[in-house]
Amino acid sequence: MRMSRMFLRTLRDDPADAEVPSHRLLVRAGYVRRVAPGIYSWLPLGLKVLAKVERIIREEMESIGSQEVRFPALLPREPYEVSGRWTDYGPNVFRLKDRKGNDMMLGPTHEEFFTLLVKDLYSSYKDLPLSLYQIQTKYRDEARPRAGILRGREFIMKDSYSFDIDDAGLDASYQAHREAYVRIFERLGFDYVIVKATSGAMGGSASEEFLAVSDTGEDTFVRSPGGYAANIEAVTTVAPDAIPYDNAPAAHAEQTPDTPTIETLVDHLNEKFPREDRPWAAGDTLKNVLVILRHPDGTREPVAIGVPGDREVDAKRLEAQVAPAEVEPFEEKDFAANPGLVKGYIGPAALGSESSTGIRYLTDPRVVDGTRWVTGANVQGSHVIDLVAGRDFTADGTIEAAEVRAGDEAPDGSGPLELARGIEMGHIFQLGRLYAEALGLKVLDENGKLVTVTMGSYGVGVSRAVAAVAEYAHDELGLVWPRELAPFDVHLVAAGKDEAVLAAAEGVYAELIGAGLEVLYDDRVGKVSPGVKFKDAELIGVPTIVVVGKGIVDGVVEVKDRSTGERTDVALADLVHAVSSQG
Amino acid sequence: MRMSRMFLRTLRDDPADAEVPSHRLLVRAGYVRRVAPGIYSWLPLGLKVLAKVERIIREEMESIGSQEVRFPALLPREPYEVSGRWTDYGPNVFRLKDRKGNDMMLGPTHEEFFTLLVKDLYSSYKDLPLSLYQIQTKYRDEARPRAGILRGREFIMKDSYSFDIDDAGLDASYQAHREAYVRIFERLGFDYVIVKATSGAMGGSASEEFLAVSDTGEDTFVRSPGGYAANIEAVTTVAPDAIPYDNAPAAHAEQTPDTPTIETLVDHLNEKFPREDRPWAAGDTLKNVLVILRHPDGTREPVAIGVPGDREVDAKRLEAQVAPAEVEPFEEKDFAANPGLVKGYIGPAALGSESSTGIRYLTDPRVVDGTRWVTGANVQGSHVIDLVAGRDFTADGTIEAAEVRAGDEAPDGSGPLELARGIEMGHIFQLGRLYAEALGLKVLDENGKLVTVTMGSYGVGVSRAVAAVAEYAHDELGLVWPRELAPFDVHLVAAGKDEAVLAAAEGVYAELIGAGLEVLYDDRVGKVSPGVKFKDAELIGVPTIVVVGKGIVDGVVEVKDRSTGERTDVALADLVHAVSSQG
Repeated sequence: MRMSRMFLRTLRDDPADAEVPSHRLLVRAGYVRRVAPGIYSWLPLGLKVLAKVERIIREEMESIGSQEVRFPALLPREPYEVSGRWTDYGPNVFRLKDRKGNDMMLGPTHEEFFTLLVKDLYSSYKDLPLSLYQIQTKYRDEARPRAGILRGREFIMKDSYSFDIDDAGLDASYQAHREAYVRIFERLGFDYVIVKATSGAMGGSASEEFLAVSDTGEDTFVRSPGGYAANIEAVTTVAPDAIPYDNAPAAHAEQTPDTPTIETLVDHLNEKFPREDRPWAAGDTLKNVLVILRHPDGTREPVAIGVPGDREVDAKRLEAQVAPAEVEPFEEKDFAANPGLVKGYIGPAALGSESSTGIRYLTDPRVVDGTRWVTGANVQGSHVIDLVAGRDFTADGTIEAAEVRAGDEAPDGSGPLELARGIEMGHIFQLGRLYAEALGLKVLDENGKLVTVTMGSYGVGVSRAVAAVAEYAHDELGLVWPRELAPFDVHLVAAGKDEAVLAAAEGVYAELIGAGLEVLYDDRVGKVSPGVKFKDAELIGVPTIVVVGKGIVDGVVEVKDRSTGERTDVALADLVHAVSSQG
Repeated sequence: MRMSRMFLRTLRDDPADAEVPSHRLLVRAGYVRRVAPGIYSWLPLGLKVLAKVERIIREEMESIGSQEVRFPALLPREPYEVSGRWTDYGPNVFRLKDRKGNDMMLGPTHEEFFTLLVKDLYSSYKDLPLSLYQIQTKYRDEARPRAGILRGREFIMKDSYSFDIDDAGLDASYQAHREAYVRIFERLGFDYVIVKATSGAMGGSASEEFLAVSDTGEDTFVRSPGGYAANIEAVTTVAPDAIPYDNAPAAHAEQTPDTPTIETLVDHLNEKFPREDRPWAAGDTLKNVLVILRHPDGTREPVAIGVPGDREVDAKRLEAQVAPAEVEPFEEKDFAANPGLVKGYIGPAALGSESSTGIRYLTDPRVVDGTRWVTGANVQGSHVIDLVAGRDFTADGTIEAAEVRAGDEAPDGSGPLELARGIEMGHIFQLGRLYAEALGLKVLDENGKLVTVTMGSYGVGVSRAVAAVAEYAHDELGLVWPRELAPFDVHLVAAGKDEAVLAAAEGVYAELIGAGLEVLYDDRVGKVSPGVKFKDAELIGVPTIVVVGKGIVDGVVEVKDRSTGERTDVALADLVHAVSSQG
């Protein structure tokens, strides 16, 4: 491909809305171009990288015997209605009506349709196990599309589904997929981690995510020295054992004026009610946070979350727990509707389905029976001390919504957790019989009895992978593609206007192509200086740059490794060999 | 691929809604599966054929230097608003709103977005000519989706666009595309014809369609012995010369009771007003047909079409002329709103923008000045005779809406027309500066002056091609794929349950794969008889069928050509050679 003819313009400036390196560089280097928020076009360079990602995924899916199919993106409402997801998706999907008024959805994922297709064609245990996949364009109406193709509203995914007669079969299918994913992510070449995950709105049991480790990632995960890894939503809290409270002092309300925050409360406690053994700390208090859950059907439910005062409620963890409901702030009008709540001094006595307010009350798993808390007395300027869980109050249940902090103990005892960020690149999970049950996917077993099929669901972000690779595969000059994903093998630069240089470059171009290499040839003449060409080559990020310049009089060209920056003079006669042996 | 594992079920019965062979066979043989009206999934077999069609198209597009890009399917309203197509598309597209209330469309075609992208990146005549293409999923909300993937609501197209500085450049780009299309259609292997076309809602000038000749096609086209070819919408009428009417008798209204149809009128004329030279015929009468045009903005306009009484108004020709307006019937309420119209006896005196009704009146090009007509007198039971065009009435204009009949003269004088049917497979046309003007795509010319770019637009139905090939590539037993499109090279059948047969078939399978062939191996055991396997092989339509049966004891297998039905016994040692040399 000659750059003089290629549909490509590199840009000097970052796009105004670009927050992360991949977005900035993929736009500047001419790989993608924005059409609308979260909606991008692929330019020739980008499409080449995308095709390479797709090839890797196809090869690995075929290697585990998964068969490719392709479903439509425009889907009828009915199957989503049966599974409950027409409503559950809330505002996160694109819905529309056709000319006859039929409801349709732009598919964000295809569990229902794969289930129905297999039900349509298969009927016996002999047909299983089965694994199907597609590489297909999907849609989500993200509230905040961001980071270019990293989190778009139209994107390409590989999604696959396994169908088995029993749990052992599902385990095996899950394991095969997990191994294929390991190979895919190894070949994509980046630092990734496999973490325990929740299954969110999808239902199901075993669930793991493949995260590309990246500071710019939207997902937080934890890992321990002993090998525990989970995304932040899936981290479970180590609950202490219950404590006997027979000898615990009675709860007593005290005046605590002007202590609407944990900090002011702790200061006040230490001043007015000092303890002998140790000072009061935020962790001695029980903070009750009110939120509104907006359920998919539109109803608004107030909920109180009780967490130790030294921890915040983590919005993502809370959202994962209450999905498909969405979390909204508890507003003034909600206080007005619940006069039993005294802002800043809310305590368990006013909370719980059995209380005067009737507000559902969920507490952190650390709030076990016998723990003693300082918490609101439901009176302005007053808190209760020595309120004992299990004796003085009982919540409606527990919830994993408190923040996870570096140094927290891993739930499996494998040591203190560290926190890091990543980009969700893959998700594998055991759906089980949820969709098969809802949509009636049953087959005859060996005894002629109808049994419900068990399913797994597996996804990889294909367009996102291009960005995720770019997130790490760059330096301050531009992109630095790994060889297997690069749009070209060689970026050939004719550095100079001499006839001799241009003629030699043409010869090298022909020779490299002849050797079966994909070559991007910067043959531009006129006002394009060698400096501009070099800058473009650095920005575009092809792994090997060959420069034909003045050295050509001595029969020598320069071969530069984009990744290491290493330059070598190579005799023309050795060029193909030198280039082919790189990487 | 082993059939025992392949996601495939052939069906004995035709789908209930299947009207055409491709639909019937592609569903029965397990290539596609319906999800909703006009919306299909691709099963493994179908996806393989689709991929081969895509490869042919990519190769030919690359061969003319077209560069692949990919636009989103979900598109913002604004560019369509600027071009006027947001409204013009009427109910034929899918529209939706995102969560923020922004209007979006599922793109039926991408002229606006290609124009904007080139405007975004290019600025000089030196950047041109440019040709870009994409293979992408498109949407049209067809009123009557039919014939399976032949006319779906979600479908795959290759669309490309050329960008040139001047008309000569556009001609060259158009010609290059035309030649690439000829190669594509040759490789797809079917009987096709290139016909003159109208450009419809797209605007523009030169326009040709590539039609696959097929009795089940939705499009009618004409051709003449001298090489004229046009789709029915584009056929122009040879208008006779005007006739002097100085000596023509005066028009005279006559009683013609009970003659609401042309046939009853002609009978009445011959009985009551016989002519000396020849009897009255339908062609002597002027039939005035009323329709309602529904314009994209929703307004309903009544229009009268005057055609010789021996011809009907052709709905498709009329629609092509009035697009983007749609044609609706003139209803009782419309007669009620226009009391000046006497049903069955409508004549020119009551028609035309200057008339009492104000209804626009368009006549067939044959209604030239001096022609004499029998037509309605606007009085119940009365017609006017000797009404002379240009003397007694003048229409608001002419319209090419009368039916075209076999035997009509070709407009270029190349002989009488024959009519045939086809499937629109490709469309190439010179858009000109329509979109570039609307969206401001200008570049600097050699003299530093801004000039508007001229564009061409070129489409091929990719998913439709799979069906169009199946429309001809079948017989009464099933599909008969041409070699370049077949999902596999060889369909290997193990015909028998003997260990010897199965073992030999396994060996043949390994050998054929080893020779680089794509093999579908029917390894099914159990209740699947050889007869069932043979039937499936005929239905699926792989070009070469290899049967390993009893002959294996003599080291012989049967090789059958699916197309000719010819069977040959081949020694095992010669099999790979025999199979590879077929086709």
